[in-house]
Amino acid sequence: MDSVQLIKIKEEILSDNTELGNEIRGRMRASGTFFINLMASPGAGKTSLLVQTIRRMKVDVRMGVIEGDIESMVDSQKIQDEGVRAVQIETGGACHLDAAMVQPALATLNLADYDLLVVENIGNLVCPAEFDIGETKKVMLLSIPEGHDKILKYPLMFTVCDVLIINKMDYLDSSDFDLQQLKATMAKLNPKARIFEMSCKTGQGVDAWCAWLKEEIAAWKQQAG
Amino acid sequence: MDSVQLIKIKEEILSDNTELGNEIRGRMRASGTFFINLMASPGAGKTSLLVQTIRRMKVDVRMGVIEGDIESMVDSQKIQDEGVRAVQIETGGACHLDAAMVQPALATLNLADYDLLVVENIGNLVCPAEFDIGETKKVMLLSIPEGHDKILKYPLMFTVCDVLIINKMDYLDSSDFDLQQLKATMAKLNPKARIFEMSCKTGQGVDAWCAWLKEEIAAWKQQAG
Repeated sequence: MDSVQLIKIKEEILSDNTELGNEIRGRMRASGTFFINLMASPGAGKTSLLVQTIRRMKVDVRMGVIEGDIESMVDSQKIQDEGVRAVQIETGGACHLDAAMVQPALATLNLADYDLLVVENIGNLVCPAEFDIGETKKVMLLSIPEGHDKILKYPLMFTVCDVLIINKMDYLDSSDFDLQQLKATMAKLNPKARIFEMSCKTGQGVDAWCAWLKEEIAAWKQQAG
Repeated sequence: MDSVQLIKIKEEILSDNTELGNEIRGRMRASGTFFINLMASPGAGKTSLLVQTIRRMKVDVRMGVIEGDIESMVDSQKIQDEGVRAVQIETGGACHLDAAMVQPALATLNLADYDLLVVENIGNLVCPAEFDIGETKKVMLLSIPEGHDKILKYPLMFTVCDVLIINKMDYLDSSDFDLQQLKATMAKLNPKARIFEMSCKTGQGVDAWCAWLKEEIAAWKQQAG
């Protein structure tokens, strides 16, 4: 295995990807579309967050979703059932989305028709953290059953995210999750990140998240205009 | 991005890796060491399973653990606290272990001193499924809070595993996890896999897993002799 060659290829990929990411970001800015890259482990609640967000916001905000999955259209169907357009990307085997994979999905949409587009990335706390897809904000979910020590083991995702949503708060009392310790580590690693405590099952914290999102969308549109 | 070149490099990596994996498997066979590749999402309970297994088996079985992490030695410390040797692999950024990463960790151990070696792979349901590390058996954990639909979204891991442990069964009643649906899909995708229902918190199912493991270790040793 020629690791030097591999590293060089990885650098080229990341650099090409950032260029394409910036191009996509420019188009989103021009159309006033707030563009979220939603990342988490498998089963942390990405689709549930989308469903809760759609139910609260779709009256006021023109939303669309791009679903990234290795296989299956389970999540796209859930989104369509909520009356929101979903575009499916099937990666085959790839464990993350990059800008080049997102671009053809975006090409099926008229960006000016959307105030908010969300990409639900592949369930993976590792690789998606490395790839810019042109997003306005990176949002990550950590769910209580995963444990508070994930920030020590997968620090890059916690470092690059703009928003950390702590989901499945309804499991907090029956778990040994140390919320204070997580927040203390986060305060050192990524003090600028906005943190929301949430339960998509009980609805706790979803309104606060939606209120924040609406403000951010308005600010982004002002910047575009 | 030159994807053809990338695919070629990936094929070469996988082929070199399988060769090295087979070499490691041969050494494990010679020393009568049962070698497990333990894989799961972040927070599914890999380390908890190891701790429970060690507590029940370390009197009869000479165990060692190789901990794969992107960063941190949290898990190694937990294993050492149980009185079992743990070797840490820090991958830097890599999202999976391959045979070449495992080899130097194995070089620090005298294989003949171990009846059972377990590699705790990086928390990731995607990439680790592709890489042989010379294991005797691939064991995967899925935890109840992750949801039963993970088998549709990450089918490769469920297809290649020899054992599927369904962990955090204590969360079953408070979740919408459909155990029968998971088992029905598994019966189609990978009918030979052994399934254990478990809760590392309550201890449910841990004895059955340890009994199975002891039988497998004995059979492997017989094959070696």
